[in-house]
Amino acid sequence: MELSSTPEPPYYAVIFTSVLSPDDEGYHEAADRMLELVAATPGFIGVDSARGADRLGITVSYFEDEAAIARWREQPEHAATRARGRERWYDAFEVRVARVERAYRSR
Amino acid sequence: MELSSTPEPPYYAVIFTSVLSPDDEGYHEAADRMLELVAATPGFIGVDSARGADRLGITVSYFEDEAAIARWREQPEHAATRARGRERWYDAFEVRVARVERAYRSR
Repeated sequence: MELSSTPEPPYYAVIFTSVLSPDDEGYHEAADRMLELVAATPGFIGVDSARGADRLGITVSYFEDEAAIARWREQPEHAATRARGRERWYDAFEVRVARVERAYRSR
Repeated sequence: MELSSTPEPPYYAVIFTSVLSPDDEGYHEAADRMLELVAATPGFIGVDSARGADRLGITVSYFEDEAAIARWREQPEHAATRARGRERWYDAFEVRVARVERAYRSR
């Protein structure tokens, strides 16, 4: 597994935390498709994602600026999939939009 | 599993992404101890954490302000454990400090 490479800050992070419902039919295919779509969004930098056995997941997507985040939010297939997620796949979720101010790495 | 509750933005998120080495002796005890310690830090709000079977993990800790992040960074036991993590437990990691500007939830 590789961590995302990101440029020198500032840039933006969309932090998506969720608890996946036990009834997750169709979820994994949709998640794969969303990764494909977000990667095609102008201004997208990268994404890191993890979900543990307790069904709590965190996906952090990195974008160059707020305009890129707006592009992704307004992508029609993404908007439709978010609605399915709210209705069917998640017991709870939260989306946080944050401006990355500094970063340190070791790899 | 419960997601962290956070106040109205702005507040800060420390996004820690890592790839855990297969040789992780002592890691889980240390991680539990760090959760105990961070929760005792003035200005700490909450933490969400997930690690998948591919060993990629994401921990997002929320703090009221930069002063609280500095307090946590300078906590002596935390500093010592970070050094062990760099040397022994992680194949790669990155820490990003970000200011949360807005948030939406469903639960």
